[in-house]
Amino acid sequence: MLEVLDLDLKMGKEEYQGAVQRLRVKLRDLQHAVRAAGIPVVVLFEGWNAAGKGDAITALVRPLDPRGFKVFTTQAPTLEEQFHPFLWRFSTRLPGKGEWVFWDRSWYRQMLEERVDGRLDRSGALAAGGEIREFERQLSDDGVVLIKFWLHVSRKEQERRLASMQSDRFERWRWTQPDWKKERGYRKYLEAAEEMLALTSTVNAPWKLVEAHNRRFRRVKIFEHLIGALAGHLSRHGKGLEATGSSMPTAESIDEGVRSRGLHIEVDSISSVLDRSDLSKHLDREDYEKQLSRLQLRLRDLEFECYGRRVASVVVYEGWDAAGKGGNIKRLTQELDPRGYEVVPITAPTLEEKTHHYLWRFWRQLPKAGHMTIFDRSWYGRVLVERVEGFACEEEWRRAYQEINEFERHLTVAGVVCVKFWLHLSPEEQLRRFQSRECTPHKRFKLTSEDWRNRTRWNDYRRAVTEMIERTSTPYAPWTVVEAEDKLWARVKTLSTLVATLEKRLGV
Amino acid sequence: MLEVLDLDLKMGKEEYQGAVQRLRVKLRDLQHAVRAAGIPVVVLFEGWNAAGKGDAITALVRPLDPRGFKVFTTQAPTLEEQFHPFLWRFSTRLPGKGEWVFWDRSWYRQMLEERVDGRLDRSGALAAGGEIREFERQLSDDGVVLIKFWLHVSRKEQERRLASMQSDRFERWRWTQPDWKKERGYRKYLEAAEEMLALTSTVNAPWKLVEAHNRRFRRVKIFEHLIGALAGHLSRHGKGLEATGSSMPTAESIDEGVRSRGLHIEVDSISSVLDRSDLSKHLDREDYEKQLSRLQLRLRDLEFECYGRRVASVVVYEGWDAAGKGGNIKRLTQELDPRGYEVVPITAPTLEEKTHHYLWRFWRQLPKAGHMTIFDRSWYGRVLVERVEGFACEEEWRRAYQEINEFERHLTVAGVVCVKFWLHLSPEEQLRRFQSRECTPHKRFKLTSEDWRNRTRWNDYRRAVTEMIERTSTPYAPWTVVEAEDKLWARVKTLSTLVATLEKRLGV
Repeated sequence: MLEVLDLDLKMGKEEYQGAVQRLRVKLRDLQHAVRAAGIPVVVLFEGWNAAGKGDAITALVRPLDPRGFKVFTTQAPTLEEQFHPFLWRFSTRLPGKGEWVFWDRSWYRQMLEERVDGRLDRSGALAAGGEIREFERQLSDDGVVLIKFWLHVSRKEQERRLASMQSDRFERWRWTQPDWKKERGYRKYLEAAEEMLALTSTVNAPWKLVEAHNRRFRRVKIFEHLIGALAGHLSRHGKGLEATGSSMPTAESIDEGVRSRGLHIEVDSISSVLDRSDLSKHLDREDYEKQLSRLQLRLRDLEFECYGRRVASVVVYEGWDAAGKGGNIKRLTQELDPRGYEVVPITAPTLEEKTHHYLWRFWRQLPKAGHMTIFDRSWYGRVLVERVEGFACEEEWRRAYQEINEFERHLTVAGVVCVKFWLHLSPEEQLRRFQSRECTPHKRFKLTSEDWRNRTRWNDYRRAVTEMIERTSTPYAPWTVVEAEDKLWARVKTLSTLVATLEKRLGV
Repeated sequence: MLEVLDLDLKMGKEEYQGAVQRLRVKLRDLQHAVRAAGIPVVVLFEGWNAAGKGDAITALVRPLDPRGFKVFTTQAPTLEEQFHPFLWRFSTRLPGKGEWVFWDRSWYRQMLEERVDGRLDRSGALAAGGEIREFERQLSDDGVVLIKFWLHVSRKEQERRLASMQSDRFERWRWTQPDWKKERGYRKYLEAAEEMLALTSTVNAPWKLVEAHNRRFRRVKIFEHLIGALAGHLSRHGKGLEATGSSMPTAESIDEGVRSRGLHIEVDSISSVLDRSDLSKHLDREDYEKQLSRLQLRLRDLEFECYGRRVASVVVYEGWDAAGKGGNIKRLTQELDPRGYEVVPITAPTLEEKTHHYLWRFWRQLPKAGHMTIFDRSWYGRVLVERVEGFACEEEWRRAYQEINEFERHLTVAGVVCVKFWLHLSPEEQLRRFQSRECTPHKRFKLTSEDWRNRTRWNDYRRAVTEMIERTSTPYAPWTVVEAEDKLWARVKTLSTLVATLEKRLGV
């Protein structure tokens, strides 16, 4: 079936830019709709080496809230994986309701490779195909939307790309893998691919073949197919894309008493390290855009450098409500290769987490060497919300400063880079943002009575933040107070701080 | 400090048997008390190769409910572990409140070995010791009881043991590990151990040195120290060992209406595969004890054989309330090496589990090659309690028979042995057991209104069980209906079934 693809299909730059702009907005809206509808989404990419699978995933996740998706790469199985049934590493990484998982190669990899190298004969392929169909049917029966892309390039095009990648310093590391030689048998691989596609294209999980020569064409086709599939699924289940607005979480009715107490905040006169930050700092949009895009690309370079040198990093975001953490994280990650980082939003601990040491759940989320984990709130909850709201007793949160310093020292001694941001703004600016959320229908759900309640405790939090920064800003893991009165300034500051820290660590 | 140990200390057989009998009962009671008090327990063993660490753990867990503890072995770090900070693999495996974790080697292994092979110098050792002290202080501050044993043998004794192990077919595999040669430098190792013990013996987590030449002496000393440490901890926190009884969960007050409806059960006349089981089957105690101990030892042999040949197995226990699953599992595992199996009790799914496919949480618990996982209740909940109580909709549980067959086929194709038991008894016998629980103070908490409520739905469950067995008994994963009217018979039957299945699979 692959020979019928017209690999000459192209798209012009202007057409592409218009299309992609529109598609990004649609996909972002779909993420909200899918979350509201509680649908798990799995998107997988197979196809030739260098066909653009990573590029496609990077393009797709750009408009998405990074707290809602994960990206996994299928390499040759580790020993641990070899010691389990074949589907184990995939089954244990299924998305929950409303979550997205992207796979760069997937459960098809092994079948394909074993077929090419002869470990799997025809009947073995039939059996493997059967198992995979069963697995996918089980997912789709359970409401998972599964979308499968095959990215196709010709032999000539593949050779051209591999050659050019080998001379690219950020791509070269990919070809040190021992399995790349296997892929050279294009003909054999093509036959195995055709067989596999035929065996596993089902009603509920058909393969989408993508002519992958032209990057713009390929990206737009992938966007359109994904959007169509999701919108179709939503509308078949009575939740059309148009209904996105109405399927947004509804705004909580605000406790008026709390709200009015929160309107005017008198900040304590006690001095704080926070006072030293100059909240008048700002950037105009032109400056911002220039700096942002330069820093984003630089961070992407550093991401690859960290991967190649196996340097892990941990980025902690803390800050006032409405200080702009979400938008800031989105800008930080926008140009990164999504296979290299993960954003972990921290909310109230689960029952299981509560029966363990409070650091336990953070240990489980640490990045492995070469990767980056961004914590949207973190273990500092112990000395912030848990302290202020009394969720931890005094003895516990008092102990925590030392525990955290020890924990972060342990990480940094192991080579992990620790960067910590406190996003700071004035109570007046916070009030403006709260009020603007109240006036914007699609943002109203973000504002709850709890936000107003937290606001009335501004001075308690200010005291907790001050002590936190004073006691846990260490030479190996310093705090950076980010002036977030102007969001543009804040975004550039977090990016440039992270970039500078990584440059220093890498000596580049 | 090690040179002061009197390695000639011994204990006679009779004295040992009396002591160990008493100590086992105490430890079992302590498990209840510790669970009731919500205390996490970590017990770790370090010491010479062949000093008896595994033997000590095996002896300690014998009286314990296997659903309440886990045993981990520290090997050389895997690639995944190397890609994380040193403490990661330990921090992520901390026990929750009321749980026990045993470590055969621990976070001390790496420090010792690197010190012996020279990767760590004196100041490196100081730093490592400091990190470990911090880690242990954090645990103990959080209420974890941490008990550390160092098992000491002389150079001569170690050499003798290693030589004899190499000729033992069940021990030989342990010496194929590349690191065993490292241990031969007894002198160097001794110095490193002395240094390590001195650096990390703290008030809250002191080392307990054990003269490990004589097995009986060693075991009793370990038992006594562990019991003393736990009882001391409990009494310091106002929960003396004597208070075990009063710290037991209190019996729920039973809904009298439900209870009276549950007293008399009329079994449906519809025929069932269950009718074919002859509930008059029984064993007298003498026969039972002979067979049990023979089968337990045989199963232990097979456990080692499975480990050596990397055959995983899954054992599923389902059955009526009060059919004796817990006691049965305890006998099944009694002689096993606890490093080779795990017992997983299945209760209602957590919030996170509910947002995933219902098989997801079982995927995460699968044994790795060479290990055994025993599920106390399982994925069959979908077609039993979830069906009967309406937690799954009809479409979901109807679909599940096929899903389960596919799941188990996938496991068996991957080489996993699947053994499934339904423990069957009559409603009359169940009533007798319920009533006997009501009359026994320390068992009363096990009986709740829910048990009575389930009992009133006997016929609904009978229908569900019948359909389950009919539809999911496959050639590759057959059900065994175990006549459990007599507990002794049931224990021998599950053991002999598992033994026969493993023998067949291994061809031994």
